[in-house]
Amino acid sequence: MADSNSLEALVQALRRLPGVGVKSASRMAFHLLQHDRDGAVRLAQALQQAAAQVHHCALCHTFTEAEVCATCLNPQRDKSKLCVVETPADQSAVERTAAFKGLYFVLMGKLSPLDGIGPRDIGLQKLFDRATDGVVQEVILATNFTAEGEATAHVIGEALKARGLQVTRLARGVPAGSELEYVDLGTIAHAMVDRR
Amino acid sequence: MADSNSLEALVQALRRLPGVGVKSASRMAFHLLQHDRDGAVRLAQALQQAAAQVHHCALCHTFTEAEVCATCLNPQRDKSKLCVVETPADQSAVERTAAFKGLYFVLMGKLSPLDGIGPRDIGLQKLFDRATDGVVQEVILATNFTAEGEATAHVIGEALKARGLQVTRLARGVPAGSELEYVDLGTIAHAMVDRR
Repeated sequence: MADSNSLEALVQALRRLPGVGVKSASRMAFHLLQHDRDGAVRLAQALQQAAAQVHHCALCHTFTEAEVCATCLNPQRDKSKLCVVETPADQSAVERTAAFKGLYFVLMGKLSPLDGIGPRDIGLQKLFDRATDGVVQEVILATNFTAEGEATAHVIGEALKARGLQVTRLARGVPAGSELEYVDLGTIAHAMVDRR
Repeated sequence: MADSNSLEALVQALRRLPGVGVKSASRMAFHLLQHDRDGAVRLAQALQQAAAQVHHCALCHTFTEAEVCATCLNPQRDKSKLCVVETPADQSAVERTAAFKGLYFVLMGKLSPLDGIGPRDIGLQKLFDRATDGVVQEVILATNFTAEGEATAHVIGEALKARGLQVTRLARGVPAGSELEYVDLGTIAHAMVDRR
């Protein structure tokens, strides 16, 4: 749009964001340049700062600016329990429940052979080293209940059981507040098998 | 997500993009930091470059890095015809048709009293000065066929007619390739009235 190489370069750069096509990217560029140049400059600064400062926690692999993240450093956490999640957003969801007081390991992805993502890409060796430190007693697999998340949980579970650890998985069942009529059959079947 | 002020600042900065909520912003930040740090740095550079370099064309108001944009400078264009559009994207759409060889005026917005956008915000005085330069004979109103676009066309049209200019509006009618059964009634009614 219009004749500007800077503008064209901005549209191309915005297209690298997930879920942003050429129309969205053009709309974003127009909005920033016409209505929010301050926002454009702030976003540029935030991107540079984050790209330079944010690293992975040496223990749990989540994003942090320190060597070890605040959760791993917290002396109140139960070091015998390790909860494995796919992303920092999943970790944040578990954390908000306040139902878990142990530590985390964030895979930063999931096994996905079709996308060429294997055990090495999601740091499984680092997880195995972490889980077999002698302090961790139980590993709770909290990967997503999708095909890839289930496969990831299966691979990790088998490997950790072989190393003599207790391995559990988040319970599958009917979500709170839902009516059976509208719950998918696979979920009801699982809830029936796992009834208590 | 995770404990990082840089990350939190990045998510907040991404939320200023149009159509991006907190979940999308988190997903974008995760993608950039985990999978595409090069993309993050490029986007930061593109934002800074565009914010510093891109200005409005002195004649047509579109985005350009020069004093006057390439279209306005092109000696092949018919200077007696001026097409008024809302955004550079709309200009680009008209330009791709190759059905118009005149010049443009890009409003960079539309009248929208509910959002507090009045005549001054979309540079109407600049348009009036431009259209009454003595060279322009016909002004073609190509604002969108939405409520705000129609109102904008009406306001501009009345003002320019009062200044003695010929004012036309893009034809309304049935889109090419469409079946009447699926075209809205207002469009068919307009096409009936404007039949030729």
